[in-house]
Amino acid sequence: MDAKYQEFLMGDFSQGFTKYIGMEAVSSSDGKFESRMVITENHRQQDGFVHAGAVSTLADHTAGYSAFTLAGEENQILTIEFKINFLAPAHGDSLVCRSEVIRSGRKIMVTESRVYDVNGGEEKMTALAIFTMAVVPKKELVR
Amino acid sequence: MDAKYQEFLMGDFSQGFTKYIGMEAVSSSDGKFESRMVITENHRQQDGFVHAGAVSTLADHTAGYSAFTLAGEENQILTIEFKINFLAPAHGDSLVCRSEVIRSGRKIMVTESRVYDVNGGEEKMTALAIFTMAVVPKKELVR
Amino acid sequence: MDAKYQEFLMGDFSQGFTKYIGMEAVSSSDGKFESRMVITENHRQQDGFVHAGAVSTLADHTAGYSAFTLAGEENQILTIEFKINFLAPAHGDSLVCRSEVIRSGRKIMVTESRVYDVNGGEEKMTALAIFTMAVVPKKELVR
Amino acid sequence: MDAKYQEFLMGDFSQGFTKYIGMEAVSSSDGKFESRMVITENHRQQDGFVHAGAVSTLADHTAGYSAFTLAGEENQILTIEFKINFLAPAHGDSLVCRSEVIRSGRKIMVTESRVYDVNGGEEKMTALAIFTMAVVPKKELVR
Repeated sequence: MDAKYQEFLMGDFSQGFTKYIGMEAVSSSDGKFESRMVITENHRQQDGFVHAGAVSTLADHTAGYSAFTLAGEENQILTIEFKINFLAPAHGDSLVCRSEVIRSGRKIMVTESRVYDVNGGEEKMTALAIFTMAVVPKKELVR
Repeated sequence: MDAKYQEFLMGDFSQGFTKYIGMEAVSSSDGKFESRMVITENHRQQDGFVHAGAVSTLADHTAGYSAFTLAGEENQILTIEFKINFLAPAHGDSLVCRSEVIRSGRKIMVTESRVYDVNGGEEKMTALAIFTMAVVPKKELVR
Repeated sequence: MDAKYQEFLMGDFSQGFTKYIGMEAVSSSDGKFESRMVITENHRQQDGFVHAGAVSTLADHTAGYSAFTLAGEENQILTIEFKINFLAPAHGDSLVCRSEVIRSGRKIMVTESRVYDVNGGEEKMTALAIFTMAVVPKKELVR
Repeated sequence: MDAKYQEFLMGDFSQGFTKYIGMEAVSSSDGKFESRMVITENHRQQDGFVHAGAVSTLADHTAGYSAFTLAGEENQILTIEFKINFLAPAHGDSLVCRSEVIRSGRKIMVTESRVYDVNGGEEKMTALAIFTMAVVPKKELVR
């Protein structure tokens, strides 16, 4: 991707739901994207851990933007399905997510996200997810 | 479950992350749970659809509470992993989720969620998810 | 599908790998397919249970043929990905699989399989699986 | 694991279903296992590709044996669930599978398999899978 499109993606990342729950873009390159989310009381579940839904959203959205870096500006990315394993409950002060494209097809991309629980600067992998994503020409997206 | 525990679960459902994003309990019975989420601009993604992360959170949390109805009051439920298929983008005014326990084991429960996009009173299934959940004695849960 | 294509699918079901491991078509209708596999020592793993791979193959292939019933004769079906939960180890004398199409799209189909362990005539669900399948025009399939 | 147990696992790998379909152990170390399967007409599906079920069986079984290397001799490994993405159809002369343990818990292990299509000595990744496995004391395994 060129520098201008990269800048667009970095800014486009936080809006609507992802902005509301505090997700931010950190860095990107061809086929890769990194993000973070500072954890507040608004992210926790009944046991005080970060909610699996918040972890999943970070994993999904960041994986989607890793796909955008390879998809071409004329295309949109939609998640067809994903699978996520929670390796250990997250209870740190922030989450970091690193995503990459595993297979880049013309119509289908397979992406992976690894989410890390950050506690006082120390990282521990909290979730591993694999996504199947559709590459859809923007002009075909009908709402 | 007895009526008192059912009342507790219905109230316990919305707190922290799930309260922040507007999820509400609708009804419950042994092995089943139903919930809803009124959609606002805070739930959407870059194309105007409900974000896959919001759909996933509703699916996961409701499935977890369907497991709670069978797990016994001394136990906590943690999601080990899940898989979700997005059948069609959701763009309605609310989502409804119906979850049920597929297999109830002493240590592992398998649950399923079906999420419906509600548009002017009409329902359309937007996502189907299967979860593997751990039944953990509350006293063993260390944060 | 018409009767002639249905007859073709019922016969086409067992060939190569699926014939080698003893899978047979039982019945089919629009969006549905049922199959069975008589269990022998060739299907078991180190503990005497039916191997998860044999269960998965039955689930995948039958789900694929449920998709064929709706896909049109000019199309081929390829599994993009699947997820399978093993609900209880199978140790019976045969397996039965019932599959159905959950969402039928022009390019993508989502299908579900339920595999039952049959022991002396009694059925018990042993696995639940969800599949994402691609509908590919036969003329585009290049080997 | 000690050398004697490693030797046992390497030999234990091919039996029943896995022997019947031609799977062989190649190498192992703590948390890792590699296997292969020479492709014959008995592994193919209706389009001439290696059947997704054969790929899945290789992925599952090899992942299970990577878990055995860390589980202790008194324990058995059972697959609770897995998810597999097929990245490209396999049509080579053999498959190679490399598996590793991603998270090793006392009761639950998460493992990953990468399956490669080998064609005239050249490898191409054909499938990526993640598994949730239960560590079960052998004495608790009742058939």
